[in-house]
Amino acid sequence: MEFFDVIRKRYSHKAAFDPTSRPTDEELRHIVEAGMAAPSAMNLQSPEFVIITEAGLLRQIGEITDNAVLRSAPAMIAVLGNPEAAEAFYREDYAAATENILLAGTALGYSVGWLDGIFRDAAVREPVSALLNIPQDRLLCVVIPVGKPGEEGARRAKKPFEERASWNGYAVRRPS
Amino acid sequence: MEFFDVIRKRYSHKAAFDPTSRPTDEELRHIVEAGMAAPSAMNLQSPEFVIITEAGLLRQIGEITDNAVLRSAPAMIAVLGNPEAAEAFYREDYAAATENILLAGTALGYSVGWLDGIFRDAAVREPVSALLNIPQDRLLCVVIPVGKPGEEGARRAKKPFEERASWNGYAVRRPS
Repeated sequence: MEFFDVIRKRYSHKAAFDPTSRPTDEELRHIVEAGMAAPSAMNLQSPEFVIITEAGLLRQIGEITDNAVLRSAPAMIAVLGNPEAAEAFYREDYAAATENILLAGTALGYSVGWLDGIFRDAAVREPVSALLNIPQDRLLCVVIPVGKPGEEGARRAKKPFEERASWNGYAVRRPS
Repeated sequence: MEFFDVIRKRYSHKAAFDPTSRPTDEELRHIVEAGMAAPSAMNLQSPEFVIITEAGLLRQIGEITDNAVLRSAPAMIAVLGNPEAAEAFYREDYAAATENILLAGTALGYSVGWLDGIFRDAAVREPVSALLNIPQDRLLCVVIPVGKPGEEGARRAKKPFEERASWNGYAVRRPS
């Protein structure tokens, strides 16, 4: 898909997925490889990825998180940060990798989401981390559901260019 | 450009730029619009952008940062975070927007970079922020140079897939 079409089409799917719409392993690998191609501080490549396709794991993550999106997702990609290795930059690292994954999933015709808020809660993060055998020195930061929509998801409006960008100084509007 | 070609071509240009290779205002706008299309926590769209094309400003930013890349960049995009609005997520927000900008610049045939470490130093960040009239409640997080290479920049190797990804559990290698 053409790059700027992908940029336009990506959205955060916050409704149910079609649980039967699982991407192939090859597609999931291709999507995660895009995540790996993202820049990282000092090229440490601190983010790591767990691809989740097993029905039992998917079901348990849906139950632990009690999240409608994750309860129906036919596949997930967990993005792990490495705060010890990448110190002050691990959040930027995993966010850039996550964005590449969202775009790559979109480019292959899937809907995707970026779920991180719920994993800031240790009561959710710890049992999911245990389920995936994530070591103590890695941090489960994001889970990305990947699949086709089961129900239509809303596209949320973006602010106009002029509200967020300016030229040669903050809030300097260019004469049109 | 095809999406996955952009993913493959993006790299962090850490050598000199050709100072005469300034993108057009339309191209810069198109690049920043890609940044605005990135997801953000609660759709707050916390990142803001200052596009820098004025020769005097570019020169001063090169001098303050004393950075070879920024000394030669024909255009820059400053990415501002909003820690007050987006609280615990402003870093993820600006990182996702930055990654979209890097990819969009690449899609239009430019080389780009992600300079953030130097702006963690208040002695660099504050004079550049003052130069761009950035208000106290916004944080200059990243400056992205955009242009054509003046000298060839190295492409840095990425780790193999198996070192960073696994299936249905951390470090679980799938039988091939």
